[in-house]
Amino acid sequence: MQLLKDKILKEGKYLGRGILKVDSFMNHQIDPALMKEIGFEFARRFKNVKATRILTAETSGIAPALAAAMALELPLVFARKHKPVTMAENPYTERAESHTHGKTVDLIVSPEYLKAEDRIIILDDFLASARTIKALVKLVASSGATLVGIGAVIEKGFEGGRSALSELNIPIESLASIANFDGEKINFTDYMLKDTGDDSISPN
Amino acid sequence: MQLLKDKILKEGKYLGRGILKVDSFMNHQIDPALMKEIGFEFARRFKNVKATRILTAETSGIAPALAAAMALELPLVFARKHKPVTMAENPYTERAESHTHGKTVDLIVSPEYLKAEDRIIILDDFLASARTIKALVKLVASSGATLVGIGAVIEKGFEGGRSALSELNIPIESLASIANFDGEKINFTDYMLKDTGDDSISPN
Repeated sequence: MQLLKDKILKEGKYLGRGILKVDSFMNHQIDPALMKEIGFEFARRFKNVKATRILTAETSGIAPALAAAMALELPLVFARKHKPVTMAENPYTERAESHTHGKTVDLIVSPEYLKAEDRIIILDDFLASARTIKALVKLVASSGATLVGIGAVIEKGFEGGRSALSELNIPIESLASIANFDGEKINFTDYMLKDTGDDSISPN
Repeated sequence: MQLLKDKILKEGKYLGRGILKVDSFMNHQIDPALMKEIGFEFARRFKNVKATRILTAETSGIAPALAAAMALELPLVFARKHKPVTMAENPYTERAESHTHGKTVDLIVSPEYLKAEDRIIILDDFLASARTIKALVKLVASSGATLVGIGAVIEKGFEGGRSALSELNIPIESLASIANFDGEKINFTDYMLKDTGDDSISPN
């Protein structure tokens, strides 16, 4: 997605240790026009998977997933990190280690909003080591729902997340895929994704 | 906002102790069509305040604030509860006690995204005791920015938040205002708000 790549090149900052700062448009401040386009792009890539719900995780997944939910006209569920007082007993719970700060977080979803008959797209801000996404995959499995796609706004291609998810055999879409960092320079992946269906397109 | 009131009456559940569960469309699952309309309604109410940025807090404020940011075409900043590794040193920090679970949380904003020349609208999911919103107000004050409006999707009129904020002398808009709960029955406030400018309208 060229608009996103341009934004990353213009405003993204590589902080070392694989950490890309995109706080100016996604992780602290949100650019609503870009987020709308991100939503349309996810919708275009997942329009044929017959999804019934989108699942994401607190916090930074919410904005891009909501934009996609608006474009696809599907309800969005965000896994909570803490069980709120309003949540029913015995929710689905999975543990994930945060990639950037190393702490362990719980991801919690109420069975009210994740059903065996659902077809789920998991969306998140980053696909890096895929630890958060794998926890979301387990939540979907716990509910008996069918996982039909995984999407991330930005993929760090060098951190192994895509191959860690490959056995799921479902479309994995990222809107900008970073091959590596070269000093402060951000290099995008330019290969075509292998076939993921009729709408398979480049991650770029 | 009638669409919202209808949704609250249909899907909201009063759990006692002033706690309204709206997890089916705002706090755990998000109804994207309703959220779009919420965004348009905030935009209508705040179209004349000449805002430059919207400020909200993790987590449940993000969806309605993003919808409003899309409609108003303004950048959205969400205060973080934990300082991410990507955040610059010496951010603005305020402490707030959570209304529903009683724990204390920090709300943290980077000076990069809150400037003295900004005109800020604060948006959140609930206006109850206004403890979170007051912490956001202090963050705005720390930055030297001008606060030009406060909005909440749902106001609990019986918890004193509005009067706690009245000395700010700025428009406070809620899209559905609950007067009280009567057993399981939800009673909305039907009075007209006092004048808050040209677009002053009822909170309902």
